[in-house]
Amino acid sequence: MNPNFGTVTIVGAGLLGGSLGLALKERGLARTVRGVGRRQCSLDTALAKGAIDEGYLNIEEAVHGADLIVVCTPAGMVPQQLDQIRGACSVSAVVTDVASTKAEICAHAEATWASPRRFVGSHPMAGSEKYGPEHATPTLYDGCVTFVEALGSQEPEAHERIVALWRSLGARVIEVDPVRHDALVARTSHIPHILAALIAELAGDACDVRAAAGRGFRDVTRIAAGRPEIWRDICLTNRAAVLEGLEQIARRLDHVRGAIEAGSGDALEAFFESARAARQKVAGE
Amino acid sequence: MNPNFGTVTIVGAGLLGGSLGLALKERGLARTVRGVGRRQCSLDTALAKGAIDEGYLNIEEAVHGADLIVVCTPAGMVPQQLDQIRGACSVSAVVTDVASTKAEICAHAEATWASPRRFVGSHPMAGSEKYGPEHATPTLYDGCVTFVEALGSQEPEAHERIVALWRSLGARVIEVDPVRHDALVARTSHIPHILAALIAELAGDACDVRAAAGRGFRDVTRIAAGRPEIWRDICLTNRAAVLEGLEQIARRLDHVRGAIEAGSGDALEAFFESARAARQKVAGE
Repeated sequence: MNPNFGTVTIVGAGLLGGSLGLALKERGLARTVRGVGRRQCSLDTALAKGAIDEGYLNIEEAVHGADLIVVCTPAGMVPQQLDQIRGACSVSAVVTDVASTKAEICAHAEATWASPRRFVGSHPMAGSEKYGPEHATPTLYDGCVTFVEALGSQEPEAHERIVALWRSLGARVIEVDPVRHDALVARTSHIPHILAALIAELAGDACDVRAAAGRGFRDVTRIAAGRPEIWRDICLTNRAAVLEGLEQIARRLDHVRGAIEAGSGDALEAFFESARAARQKVAGE
Repeated sequence: MNPNFGTVTIVGAGLLGGSLGLALKERGLARTVRGVGRRQCSLDTALAKGAIDEGYLNIEEAVHGADLIVVCTPAGMVPQQLDQIRGACSVSAVVTDVASTKAEICAHAEATWASPRRFVGSHPMAGSEKYGPEHATPTLYDGCVTFVEALGSQEPEAHERIVALWRSLGARVIEVDPVRHDALVARTSHIPHILAALIAELAGDACDVRAAAGRGFRDVTRIAAGRPEIWRDICLTNRAAVLEGLEQIARRLDHVRGAIEAGSGDALEAFFESARAARQKVAGE
């Protein structure tokens, strides 16, 4: 039998939150889904889509008596919202989030939550360049790799419920240490995003460039169409890992520039060959 | 009525050359398609696919008496092959190429061909991370943006025939100055490729990184799966424009690193916002 998560409060009813609501409701995994938004119009969209049953502008009110609370807002907002939730939710509630960075958020929860804490960090790798409740879909988490903070000082039953939540939506759960998580996604997501943004910005400076932008360009820069405040928060909440990776990129870029300047065909071929092998190892299709 | 390009010699029967042969034959645009390869096994694959009617290992022999000659080899090989072709083809033959860089190749032809020259540079933006005659397809050029060297000192009838060639295959022809072409594709193709390769290489250094590589990573790095010698030649034959763009990338990367170090949320949000707007301008879907 499927679990039932009872009354679920989703803080932030955008693409991720709205899709979570749709998925829970479609699978009959919740008694009631409450959505919290900053603006009534987003709540109205989520309500009209059937992603939530009830809309709230006040977070304390929305988490009162909820069994499961999922924070689906940009990483920079999560710690403060966890503070609000902690003071207003029932002692039996289980809390998670979906932000793309985990170390700061989990450390904040660890420092502020009563032990054993009932907050367990999550990160479903389900974002896209689209956002807003209008793009929400009940299948967003189907087959989606979802990182869940490995069991440490959390209440084991809370941890189990969060793992069960994602699995019941079809996600592939991977338990991971939050610091390790952030180092990994810096390399597979955050640094690629920053470089894609640099590529888009540079091309945008040229005139009459549209015809010369083929499928390759569109693929490389697709993620740069994402929501600026999400990526701002990711950079600010994963500073050490992002800066370390960007320093490596800068150093390697110097090396490639040197090889081009020197006309060193062998060095360039070796570089592209090594990149091709790395791509195959990391994401071979 | 469709034009007929008579006896067509394709030098290099890989993805681009093989697809050209298939497209010409399927549309009845050639009497005979000859293919030139360095290895008999590639020619055998192209023959078996029906991409060419006859295979040659010797370029001079293959262009003898041909009406149209299309060089489909990496950019670095084109000038030397044009020299071989120039000495062996008939005076009425028209010659083009498909390399991704145009300034060096067109300048070489201009300096060496008798005036008015019958070489007209082309660049169909039809490459992909796949290569080899086994991936050739008759629809590769359908709807494909194809840059053709703008009319200058070439024989106008030769220029007309090259434009007609691509149009008859369904391509969208854009006439362009070769130096301007190289500056444009540096920004939409060459620099994106180099950065995608850097992204792939950096991710490849991490352990257990595969699960963290989602659709975004695969999109950004897809082009890094391309053929190393093609990209080596592109870097070497478009040095000035690529180096100029990479210098800008390095400078902007420093700026982003500074903003992350300083924790400047406003600067980061402005950067991602500007990149999103640029992406929309260049490649909005």
